[in-house]
Amino acid sequence: MKVAQFQMVVSDSKSANLNKVKEWCENVCREDVDLICLPEMFNCPYDTKQFPAYAEPDKGETWQLLSELAGKHRIYVLGGSIPEIDEDRYYNTSYLFDREGREIGKHRKMHLFDVNIAGGQYFKESDILSAGDQVTVVNTEFGGIGIAICYDIRFPELLRLMVLKGADYIFIPAAFNMTTGPAHWEITFRARALDNQVYLFGTSSARNTDAGYHAYGHSLVVSPWGEVLAELDEKEGSLVSTIDRGRIGEIREQLPLLKHRRQDVYELNLR
Amino acid sequence: MKVAQFQMVVSDSKSANLNKVKEWCENVCREDVDLICLPEMFNCPYDTKQFPAYAEPDKGETWQLLSELAGKHRIYVLGGSIPEIDEDRYYNTSYLFDREGREIGKHRKMHLFDVNIAGGQYFKESDILSAGDQVTVVNTEFGGIGIAICYDIRFPELLRLMVLKGADYIFIPAAFNMTTGPAHWEITFRARALDNQVYLFGTSSARNTDAGYHAYGHSLVVSPWGEVLAELDEKEGSLVSTIDRGRIGEIREQLPLLKHRRQDVYELNLR
Repeated sequence: MKVAQFQMVVSDSKSANLNKVKEWCENVCREDVDLICLPEMFNCPYDTKQFPAYAEPDKGETWQLLSELAGKHRIYVLGGSIPEIDEDRYYNTSYLFDREGREIGKHRKMHLFDVNIAGGQYFKESDILSAGDQVTVVNTEFGGIGIAICYDIRFPELLRLMVLKGADYIFIPAAFNMTTGPAHWEITFRARALDNQVYLFGTSSARNTDAGYHAYGHSLVVSPWGEVLAELDEKEGSLVSTIDRGRIGEIREQLPLLKHRRQDVYELNLR
Repeated sequence: MKVAQFQMVVSDSKSANLNKVKEWCENVCREDVDLICLPEMFNCPYDTKQFPAYAEPDKGETWQLLSELAGKHRIYVLGGSIPEIDEDRYYNTSYLFDREGREIGKHRKMHLFDVNIAGGQYFKESDILSAGDQVTVVNTEFGGIGIAICYDIRFPELLRLMVLKGADYIFIPAAFNMTTGPAHWEITFRARALDNQVYLFGTSSARNTDAGYHAYGHSLVVSPWGEVLAELDEKEGSLVSTIDRGRIGEIREQLPLLKHRRQDVYELNLR
């Protein structure tokens, strides 16, 4: 599977953001990729107050573009995330499209980011957003593709449930900040990949110092052995990787972590 | 709480190992420590075939020494681990003693280390050992002390259950090897501490290139923010740290990971 992640600078203009995605997609698809992935909230500023103005209902403008790009280029499109409106509620939502442009997956961020770090970041998503309650894994020709969004990665329970549901690759559109990014971004991705023996893809927006929220960037790909295979810095850029699914089986055979779980002692379940 | 960890070179002679512990304890206790911690299998070679010859029943020779040291120096003693025999079964067992020399906790390794890494480590504990089935957390004057042994740390479920049971500090007597140590030791300790917002203490034996099993060493202390506070190299040595319990509460208030678990969506329970 050849994957292209786009660490894009997100602006205040939705149309400019969508045009940028379209243009990037045209370029990157010359490299014969199978799946593209965008960052969290790639069509709007990462600012809770602004989410309602950018929010779209089911099959809105952004959804249409992503579906069209998937069908046109015969690729999977993992659409980072956008603000979704459903009746009177807002969600932080990611869509996955197949090579025919059909929506085959949808994840609503399950853990909302409400933090207040001394001398650091304050952010309260739950002022505006509602949380999803589904574990999202989609079967594809390449194996199981799991989707979670940013703060969701903090919760080992969710990632483990995704793997038990068949995820081989977990995509995390994200926007860590300048407090938690340097402290926790890489280590959290590496540990989740290692513990669950799957590939992890973190796709962040690029750092935009003109914006109110400064993303850490550092989009990355981590192997099932916990190695960082590729990582960007904070600037706009693409990360294109060819992924060897066979490594998953090899590592699980040598170090059978999933088999060694003591299911006779503890159980992790969906309610 | 002032903690002293002993990354000791373990020899083939049980009496030499016990004498070394006694002498080290006399020395380190001049520094007014509250708790000492020893490595995994500190009284015998880390070699499954040899465990039976070194194994002790309840209140055996090693247990007696640890209890005596605890009472004499008025300290908590977390006795790394030793091979225990109980009826016809062998366990990899850790004992915790209070300042009066009373046993207040006992953990039997729950996840046995059976691996076969291509070009790396082969090891099969389950040839000889039986596994424990208890989550071990003990209340003390300093808060909850959790104990797990080496490979146990690989399982986020166990560590999470320990924290939900009240662990503030998790001690992991261990002996990672030269394949998994460089690749996974530090990252796994950091991620577990960070995800659960507790202190983690990894206490390894020192590397003994004369022995059949080469321990990675690198005993360490990790903060609830995922920072390595102190770490040894591979050689014999002590790690003495003063721990600020208040940091746990501060970090949990700023970044409320434990509160944000979606207990309405998933549940992790003991069977």
